[in-house]
Amino acid sequence: MLIDLRSDTVTKPTAAMRKAMADAEVGDDVYKEDPTVNRLEELAADMLGKEAALFVTSGTQGNQIAVLTHTAPGQEILLEAESHIFYYEAGAVAALAGVQTRTIPGIRGAMEPKLVEAAIRGEDIHFPATALLCLENTHNRAGGAVLPLSYMAVLYDLAKRRHVAVHMDGARLFNAAVALGVDVRAIAEHVDTVQICLSKGLGAPVGSILAGPKVWIAKARKWRKRLGGGMRQAGVIAAPGILALTEMVERLAEDHAHAKQLAYALAEMKGITIRPEHIETNIVIFDVAKTGRSADECVVALKNEGILATSFGPTCIRLVTHKDIGQQDIETAIHRMNNIFSQ
Amino acid sequence: MLIDLRSDTVTKPTAAMRKAMADAEVGDDVYKEDPTVNRLEELAADMLGKEAALFVTSGTQGNQIAVLTHTAPGQEILLEAESHIFYYEAGAVAALAGVQTRTIPGIRGAMEPKLVEAAIRGEDIHFPATALLCLENTHNRAGGAVLPLSYMAVLYDLAKRRHVAVHMDGARLFNAAVALGVDVRAIAEHVDTVQICLSKGLGAPVGSILAGPKVWIAKARKWRKRLGGGMRQAGVIAAPGILALTEMVERLAEDHAHAKQLAYALAEMKGITIRPEHIETNIVIFDVAKTGRSADECVVALKNEGILATSFGPTCIRLVTHKDIGQQDIETAIHRMNNIFSQ
Amino acid sequence: MLIDLRSDTVTKPTAAMRKAMADAEVGDDVYKEDPTVNRLEELAADMLGKEAALFVTSGTQGNQIAVLTHTAPGQEILLEAESHIFYYEAGAVAALAGVQTRTIPGIRGAMEPKLVEAAIRGEDIHFPATALLCLENTHNRAGGAVLPLSYMAVLYDLAKRRHVAVHMDGARLFNAAVALGVDVRAIAEHVDTVQICLSKGLGAPVGSILAGPKVWIAKARKWRKRLGGGMRQAGVIAAPGILALTEMVERLAEDHAHAKQLAYALAEMKGITIRPEHIETNIVIFDVAKTGRSADECVVALKNEGILATSFGPTCIRLVTHKDIGQQDIETAIHRMNNIFSQ
Amino acid sequence: MLIDLRSDTVTKPTAAMRKAMADAEVGDDVYKEDPTVNRLEELAADMLGKEAALFVTSGTQGNQIAVLTHTAPGQEILLEAESHIFYYEAGAVAALAGVQTRTIPGIRGAMEPKLVEAAIRGEDIHFPATALLCLENTHNRAGGAVLPLSYMAVLYDLAKRRHVAVHMDGARLFNAAVALGVDVRAIAEHVDTVQICLSKGLGAPVGSILAGPKVWIAKARKWRKRLGGGMRQAGVIAAPGILALTEMVERLAEDHAHAKQLAYALAEMKGITIRPEHIETNIVIFDVAKTGRSADECVVALKNEGILATSFGPTCIRLVTHKDIGQQDIETAIHRMNNIFSQ
Repeated sequence: MLIDLRSDTVTKPTAAMRKAMADAEVGDDVYKEDPTVNRLEELAADMLGKEAALFVTSGTQGNQIAVLTHTAPGQEILLEAESHIFYYEAGAVAALAGVQTRTIPGIRGAMEPKLVEAAIRGEDIHFPATALLCLENTHNRAGGAVLPLSYMAVLYDLAKRRHVAVHMDGARLFNAAVALGVDVRAIAEHVDTVQICLSKGLGAPVGSILAGPKVWIAKARKWRKRLGGGMRQAGVIAAPGILALTEMVERLAEDHAHAKQLAYALAEMKGITIRPEHIETNIVIFDVAKTGRSADECVVALKNEGILATSFGPTCIRLVTHKDIGQQDIETAIHRMNNIFSQ
Repeated sequence: MLIDLRSDTVTKPTAAMRKAMADAEVGDDVYKEDPTVNRLEELAADMLGKEAALFVTSGTQGNQIAVLTHTAPGQEILLEAESHIFYYEAGAVAALAGVQTRTIPGIRGAMEPKLVEAAIRGEDIHFPATALLCLENTHNRAGGAVLPLSYMAVLYDLAKRRHVAVHMDGARLFNAAVALGVDVRAIAEHVDTVQICLSKGLGAPVGSILAGPKVWIAKARKWRKRLGGGMRQAGVIAAPGILALTEMVERLAEDHAHAKQLAYALAEMKGITIRPEHIETNIVIFDVAKTGRSADECVVALKNEGILATSFGPTCIRLVTHKDIGQQDIETAIHRMNNIFSQ
Repeated sequence: MLIDLRSDTVTKPTAAMRKAMADAEVGDDVYKEDPTVNRLEELAADMLGKEAALFVTSGTQGNQIAVLTHTAPGQEILLEAESHIFYYEAGAVAALAGVQTRTIPGIRGAMEPKLVEAAIRGEDIHFPATALLCLENTHNRAGGAVLPLSYMAVLYDLAKRRHVAVHMDGARLFNAAVALGVDVRAIAEHVDTVQICLSKGLGAPVGSILAGPKVWIAKARKWRKRLGGGMRQAGVIAAPGILALTEMVERLAEDHAHAKQLAYALAEMKGITIRPEHIETNIVIFDVAKTGRSADECVVALKNEGILATSFGPTCIRLVTHKDIGQQDIETAIHRMNNIFSQ
Repeated sequence: MLIDLRSDTVTKPTAAMRKAMADAEVGDDVYKEDPTVNRLEELAADMLGKEAALFVTSGTQGNQIAVLTHTAPGQEILLEAESHIFYYEAGAVAALAGVQTRTIPGIRGAMEPKLVEAAIRGEDIHFPATALLCLENTHNRAGGAVLPLSYMAVLYDLAKRRHVAVHMDGARLFNAAVALGVDVRAIAEHVDTVQICLSKGLGAPVGSILAGPKVWIAKARKWRKRLGGGMRQAGVIAAPGILALTEMVERLAEDHAHAKQLAYALAEMKGITIRPEHIETNIVIFDVAKTGRSADECVVALKNEGILATSFGPTCIRLVTHKDIGQQDIETAIHRMNNIFSQ
């Protein structure tokens, strides 16, 4: 049987979620009359410690609306060099919001505060104004790395002092919270606005939340309309989103344990480079350079053994654990990988 | 009890649709692995007579992606002066696609071909190139008017001759097809690309379809990603969409009969101006100028009697019939309106 | 000898202007150190009754910067259906500023205030906000028509009441002032910002002025930089611009007299339709439909007789008088046209 | 007397240039009837070895038009992390062209080919297509560094192989050519399109040239119109541009010698860090960290001694030599700097 470790985006809705969809009380959300959407937005705002929230169809949509709402064309945004917004959103921030991306290479997803401060532009006719700092927590391409709370606090202070807004791409923010053993609110208090995914680890089929100040969310709602994210009886997908927030958070700890188990096992395999002590959440990235094979070749070899993985650069591979992967799957996966990486 | 005639967007999913959601086979649609989404896209493409289709989250998103995919910034699009794309999409075609809107006032939603041809720009350093002609069928602000097939054919010939692409906002295309007694394919063959809504009259909770040539849909898919319309286990909302297309089309005839019944009754009421013979589908627009009251005042009066309606300009009101309004509701509505408009 | 009546844009700099260029004191204007540019900007601001002014390279650039500075993407601007910004600027307002154009057909260039007011959008999630009203004075495609001062006052009151900014494309504003017998300031007081051309009738080789509030001009200066309109030793072209404003205004009356002379003569010619009493400034538009020939054919016939004219639609032709056309040229032109339009 | 070493943009037109302006034969360039502009464009295209050229008002405008003409919104461009287009054009490539900037840190202005190749995106729904590679030669923030011809050839081969267009910001391309002892054509043959400045070292008061394939320049001309760069009797500024190309190139060697002289003198001063052997053209950047003073403080100290310089980061200062700085000025400057940097 296939063990799908490509991403936590492949998770399927639980039985309870399916029932919730079928039973959802709905209305026309463009008129703000869908009670289930309203309930989800209030719940999410409350959990994130923000005044208001907006249900959007994807993490990308949440991030794009955030940038559109925070900025004006010809301004500059600062973001980590391999952040999702820069790396995986098809250049949309430039196409839609007209802002220039200024990237800063991070260490395990964290940009050095000194480099961030140096990148903030002063007033000059030649310079775009620096309007927004984007953080990603956990950081996907940094292997699910968690931004420390003290780091978040330092960056937010710096940004406030320099009059730069802060948005967090928290597609996997609940993984960070579980890893840190804190409430998401304790993280989100260090940013102005935040996007979280209800799908991925939390298992809802569709949707994300964008949260922030009330007036800002009202502006964001209009940008959502322009992007075509205004839906009608959206309660049918908001209902499983409520379960994602209320029922699915704690179990992320399991995914993290599975990821560590994979990582420690991989560390023993021939030709694999990985630092298992760096695995903090549900993402495992390892380097196959010393096997003499490319990442693409190894992904094929893994597939042939029944493991789906993602190529993450010329010699790196990413595995992601999630709710549809059990303890047995992890052991099977390790067994199969041992076969591949022992030759 | 409230009779909600504001819009057919308020329709709620049927029991069968709710069951379909709960039972839907799903996968990650960003990887194109959601079998239900794939099935819906194939079905829709086939019904519309186009090579390929794309599931999007709203009619606005379908239209915006169409304009983004057909055009380049600094070009011009031609559209009817009260078309949805121009009137109700928050200026998104300019904000997202950077195209200039050139509007032509229509007669019952139809722009005179002579005016369309005159509006197509020649080559000149001062002129934006005319890239796209947008039609709306049925036409909302023209009271659900249907574009005649012969008219569609004439416009399409003209557009082809002048190398201008044609997109149809067919949010209510199935209403047009039922009114004309033809298959939607017979209408859609006169355009390059078309957007249809699965919600509205067809009753699905969420979603629209964009259809067109295969290569064009591949480009459109990337724009959908940029707008954040790429979803994960979208099968849960595609499933009721399939029922919308297979089970819900024929019953639109009922909504049309109800609309005519309302219109003929309104024509008898004091101070109401309406030409009931113009009611072709499920939209009824009437003028209250001669009642001495404004549209807003009449909408309040209607609400007080338990009828929800939409103000449509200073002295006009719109009623829309739909699947959640039965014969009894129509009769009650007429009775209540008689009370209001007899004084 | 060719008599070039295509446009007043063909005017060549005077000997005094050429001398001024050669003698101009210059500096680096990006550092705001060009004394001649500074002098021109102060002079123009003062003449127009505005706090500040900005030297730009063309009327189109002035208008585009105005729209960029007044608006945000996804907003709507109101403008006359055949205004230069809409008709002749290659769709740039959509491409650069991302604003939707809502056009209102005018009568002799003037949009009815009632129609303007009806076109201003209320607050609604579906609507672009109405950010800007653009006027054109004199109005090119309306045959150099002048907007009456009382009309300007009414529109400005309306716009202020509805919180909509007003920009005037005054490419030929001095023609309007001369025709009305007032100072340009008396016209410009009815708008927030204004663009005037130093070329065209005033004869400078290059350049326009954008004027408005000081803070607004500072923002505009940055947009000018983005469009590449920031120049270095621009004093060499600002110098003739100063002469344009100080030496060349009064003589526009001559161009107006010449235009009237042409118009009254044309009114007598066979097959020509024109209302000479409508000619207010230096533009003469006449209809050749009754000659049985198209505008393009007549333009060729005119060229064969040594007159350069511009085709202005299927059966209309535009002539423009200017400083390089003397009384003798007008008489010769009439003589030649009599030959053409007597057959 | 002030010695202005802030930039070569402060150069003033020569007497011959002033005479050329006064005598220029002109016409309306929007109609392509300005013989002097036409002559300049042909001359420049020929010198650069390109099919066609376009006169624009600034280097920024030339670069922006290049990006607009090469790309579509949502694509990505690769450029050096401190290149002018990224650093000094106010975010315009995002605001106007809607493209995402992906920066690569260079060594003396040159991005490693391996890094460039790694940054080119493959086909993926999440990725912006890589449309354009921008080079800067000489590279301003890298201290006027010259890109070696062999490097240019390698990059161009790589780009062609990967179907990425190449544009060169050659604002100071003639400095590179003089330093390399080759014709500009020998450099420009390694790019698809190039922008060169007629102002700066070459001394024309205003203007730049954009050169490339004929069809591409025709498209670029329309973007110039949208940016308001279409001028009327532009011959008055094209005339000194012709002299810039024909009379002013060889003397750049003098500026380079002056720059080296400054650099070797600075290397001897107390607290100054500089590698004089790195000075290839007319730009001298040195570090004042070891003086214990900031760059801003030193710029003030220099100004008090009659030397204008530019702060170039917290502890760096830039000096630029140019035609209005003679041998005597250099010696005076060195003398004055010795006073400042000996304490």
